[in-house]
This record gives sequence, C-alpha cells and structure tokens, in this order.
Amino acid sequence: MTTGLPFDDFRALVRDLPKPAFEAAEAVRQRDAALTKPAGSLGRLEELAVWLAAWTGRAPAVTRPLVAVFAGNHGVTAQGVSPFPTSVTAQMVENFAAGGAAINQICIAHDLGLKVFDLALDLPTADITQEAAMDERTCAATMAFGMESIAGGTDLLCIGEMGIGNTTIAAAIYYALYGGKAEDWVGAGTGHSAEGIALKADVIRKAVDLHKDHLKDPFEVLRRLGGREIAAMAGAILAARVERIPVIIDGFVATSAAAILHAASPDALDHCQIGHVSAEQAHRTVVEKLGKKPILDLDMRLGEGTGAALAAGIVKAAALCHSGMATFEQAGVSDKA
Amino acid sequence: MTTGLPFDDFRALVRDLPKPAFEAAEAVRQRDAALTKPAGSLGRLEELAVWLAAWTGRAPAVTRPLVAVFAGNHGVTAQGVSPFPTSVTAQMVENFAAGGAAINQICIAHDLGLKVFDLALDLPTADITQEAAMDERTCAATMAFGMESIAGGTDLLCIGEMGIGNTTIAAAIYYALYGGKAEDWVGAGTGHSAEGIALKADVIRKAVDLHKDHLKDPFEVLRRLGGREIAAMAGAILAARVERIPVIIDGFVATSAAAILHAASPDALDHCQIGHVSAEQAHRTVVEKLGKKPILDLDMRLGEGTGAALAAGIVKAAALCHSGMATFEQAGVSDKA
Repeated sequence: MTTGLPFDDFRALVRDLPKPAFEAAEAVRQRDAALTKPAGSLGRLEELAVWLAAWTGRAPAVTRPLVAVFAGNHGVTAQGVSPFPTSVTAQMVENFAAGGAAINQICIAHDLGLKVFDLALDLPTADITQEAAMDERTCAATMAFGMESIAGGTDLLCIGEMGIGNTTIAAAIYYALYGGKAEDWVGAGTGHSAEGIALKADVIRKAVDLHKDHLKDPFEVLRRLGGREIAAMAGAILAARVERIPVIIDGFVATSAAAILHAASPDALDHCQIGHVSAEQAHRTVVEKLGKKPILDLDMRLGEGTGAALAAGIVKAAALCHSGMATFEQAGVSDKA
Repeated sequence: MTTGLPFDDFRALVRDLPKPAFEAAEAVRQRDAALTKPAGSLGRLEELAVWLAAWTGRAPAVTRPLVAVFAGNHGVTAQGVSPFPTSVTAQMVENFAAGGAAINQICIAHDLGLKVFDLALDLPTADITQEAAMDERTCAATMAFGMESIAGGTDLLCIGEMGIGNTTIAAAIYYALYGGKAEDWVGAGTGHSAEGIALKADVIRKAVDLHKDHLKDPFEVLRRLGGREIAAMAGAILAARVERIPVIIDGFVATSAAAILHAASPDALDHCQIGHVSAEQAHRTVVEKLGKKPILDLDMRLGEGTGAALAAGIVKAAALCHSGMATFEQAGVSDKA
C-alpha cells in the first residue's frame, strides 16, 4: 500500500480528534428537563440541541450558519456516466453566483450564508477507470484548501457539492469502502436510464478493480477514486471538528467525503449530522453504515447542499427552542402531578 | 342515529368541496421542468409546489403563513388520564402569549404568524365516559368559531392544539372511526406510565361503548367523543378549503379533527399536508388511513402545532425554489444531452 507523506498531517489529525464537550451537553440536558413541555416531547430537536452544545462547547445557538458548496470536474465523464455535459458544472457555479439555483432559494428561506468554491474546473481529475483521480500532492492540497474554506467563520456548516459525474465517483468510493456488488451503489444520479445505471456499475467495477491493491487506506481511496470536491469536503469536515463547528452533511455525494473520514476513524463524524437521506438508492445503506439517522427524508437527489440546508432550518429551530423556551417555574406552569 | 340540524351546514359543505385548480398545478409542473435541476431531483419539494398551486389557484408563494393553536379542556381528565392538572391548559395559553413555548420559538425560526384561540377553558367538555362531550349546538358553534378563526387571512395555515387530556380524546375518536382494539390507539401522551396507558385504553373503551349506537356519523363522533379544540380545528380546516388556503396539520391530536372530516368525505383533506408523524404510536397508522405522507419524522409529540410549523419551513422553501430558481435558458445552463 502506498502511503504518501502528504497525507501524514491528516492521519495525525484523525488520530487525535477533539472530543465532545460533556459539560455543555449536560447543561443542555438539565435545562431541557425544566422547559415547559413534557420530557422528551421535542424528540429529535432535543437531541440536536444537545449535539450543538457538545460540539461547540456552548449553549445551543446558530447565528452564522453557512452552506459551503464545493464544485469539481471528473475525467470519468469520458465513460459517458452522465447525460449532462461537463460544462454544466461551471455553468451551475455561475448560476449559484447569480442566485438562480435551488440552494440559493433554500438559503433565503432559512437565512443561511452561502459560499461556493470551484476547484480547478478546467482541470478535471483523471478517469478513475484508467488511473488514479489525483496524485497525492493534489489530493492533500485540495483537502487543505477545504480546511481553509471555513476560515471565515460559522457556527453551523452545511456541506454540499456540484460536479457532473460525481455520483459515479461517490458510488466508486462506497464500493471500495464497503464491498458488495457494484450494482448496490449506483442509482439514477442526475437523471439516468436503466442502461445508464448498468454503465455506471460497469465503470465503478472497472475502477475499483484497477485500484484494488491500494484501497485499504481510506486516503488512498480518496485520491484514487475521489475528486477534488470530495477531497475538499473531507478537509472542511475535518477542519470543522478541529474548530468546534457542528456540520450538516448533504446527500449521496457529500456523504462519500464523510465516509472516507469515518473509514479513517470511526468517531470522525461525531460532530456531523446527515441532513437528509437521498432518493439516490444506496444513500440509506451508507447512512446506516455511518451509524447516522438523517434529519429529513424528502425524496431529494439534487446535491448543492440542498438537503443539508433544509435540515439547517430544523437545527436552527432546535437551538431556538432550547434557548428561547421558558421553564415551568418562569412561566408559572404546573409540572406533572 | 341522531343527526342534529346544527350540523346541516357542515354536511352541505363537505358534500360540495372546492376542487383543485388544475391549470395552476399544471403551470407549476411545466415551469418545474424548465428549472436548473434534473427533473424530479427536488422530490417532495416539487410535489409541495404543485400542491400549493392546486389549492391556491396561483403560482406557489407563502407570504403570510399562520399557525393557529386551539386550546380546550376536557371532562375526561376526571378519569385520571393525564399526569398534568387541567389548569396547565390555561397556563400554557399564557405561556404562548408570553412567547415562552416551543411553538413561539419555531414561529420565530421560520417567520410564521401565531394566533392562539382558547375555547372556554373554564367550561371543560363533559366526561366522555359518562355522556356526550358536547351538545349539538355547542359542537356546531365551536366548528363555526373555528371557521371564523382564519378570517384575518393567511396563505398557509398550520393547525395545532393544546389541551390536557386531549390525546385520550383523539384516541377515542380514532377508536370510534377505525375500530380495532382500544390499545391500538393509545400512547404515552404528555408523559405517561405503562399503567397510565392501560388506563387510557380502558377509558376510551368505556367511552366508545357508551356511545356505540351513534358513531356511524362522523359529526356525532366529534360531538360525543371530541372536544372544543377538535371541533374548532375541524372548522378551521374546512374554512381553509373554502377559502383556498393550503393547510398543514400537526400531530396526533390535530389529525383527529382532520380524520372526522375525512370520514365525512374522503376528499376533504386534499388541501392538507400532515406536517409530521408523531412519536405517539398510533399516529402513523392514522396518517396511512388518511392516505397521507408526513413531511417530517422527528420523533416529536408535543402538539402546539410544532410539527406543522417545522414543516411550514419546508413548504416555504418549496415555494421559493419554484418561484426563485432560474430556468436552464435564463441561466445559460446546458440541459441533458
């Protein structure tokens, strides 16, 4: 197995990840028990409030939520895996900038900041059926770029992506990490026929077969089968952990970046929620493998961070419920007899 | 079967309900196909945009969303069905007014209006194990009050409730409408022990047995087993249909008002979404019987309209996505090859 020096910093990071803030989490549990509602009746919202406290070290508050969308292009599109031309990735980045995409509207609806990072769109990664997507230096540098991407600050990071062909990339990563049959991991992507889906299965089978002697190391899976936006998302998720920023991960493709980190260290995603379960069939399986429970299930499969951003609306409400509700004593409401 | 004259207006209404606006719905489908996303990729959001258009007759827009919370008290609490004293209903209404409840925070989070209607809290309905909850006139007048409640205007109505003891009332309604075993319809309510749950089952068995010769007429189910807030919610849902206002129904208790209307006419809820599926066990079964798919599943069981209000955040985003997204042509994005 090739373990390149450029990954050493990341390996060190995932070996020594920050732990949850137990005291802040416990303070939330105690205040929650005094709020004017039956214990447990806010269900997932209560869990989210505890989670926010555990990973920020503070009382739950979401004041600077940010959606970070990472865009990349993929040499594997040469295999005909997407019905859209690669040029659409850059066109959609323009659409984000002009405010015309779905993610722009959801950010307006839930008052979320939006930053879009396009990653050398004119330099697609190599075709993974022919060679490794990236060399080690490129992969590590892109992860480092992803880490820097959140330096502007946020207290709730939503991770999304755009990249024609990247459902094939994500499927290849899952196939490499989890095995099974190639068919288990491919779905409709951005709108594909049954033949298209069979083609995608063939492509990821070919890719994983080519790289099969190097896939025990998750970072090698990332550089060989991944893409720039996948590497950048992995970096951003890791940086958020270090900076104590809770993360909401979007759907099928964004989760592949999370899965790389999870494979490197099973606790690497403890600061993360999965925003929604995608209509892309294999996502539910992946989410289970990560031990996560998606916040939303709305049959969406767009990417762009749309599912994560919708879930941010729920997380914001969870924070407000915890911080804004009166206690039984404050409100003069009688508790259980 | 006793069919009181006071219900005749409502019977006439449910026999001749407004139909969906097919042209407005079709216009949404056509525009949706041109938006910068793969067809179908926004899943439920696309369905919600069509639904908004179908029931407003306009392009999807949510500019005056309103949460209406109806509060009532119940004589059945004499049977010991709630661990909270009845006085909590009025205390919680005060808490709503002071901004200290969960629903207040969710309304802030999603920028929703909130109106609370307390329904003669000093006059609990009769104990349904002993007699009918209300006489026909009271029940019809309360439905009419519910119809008036939305006269201030809204373009998205979220229906919620507050009432100590009303999970027992809702369970009795479901048992009367759907049969099965009493145990099928009772759950933890606002926090109950196993013995408490057994007691609730006994109570609804006794109530349904007492009224069993009069339960073929849904309006009789409402007045005999219901409560003021249930009757008012049924009126509000009906008025919204007439006024072409889409409705989001909250959880276990609010859905019992909807179930009455559905039993009276299977298409009575076509303008309604179920905001969330409650952690109150039987809600999932009820929602299936109504032919609905809840928007959210967050393990909540608080009432107050909290699940509906959270779902309103999703519906608002759905409207914005439809109205705000650019088309492929506008954005200069290439469509599928």
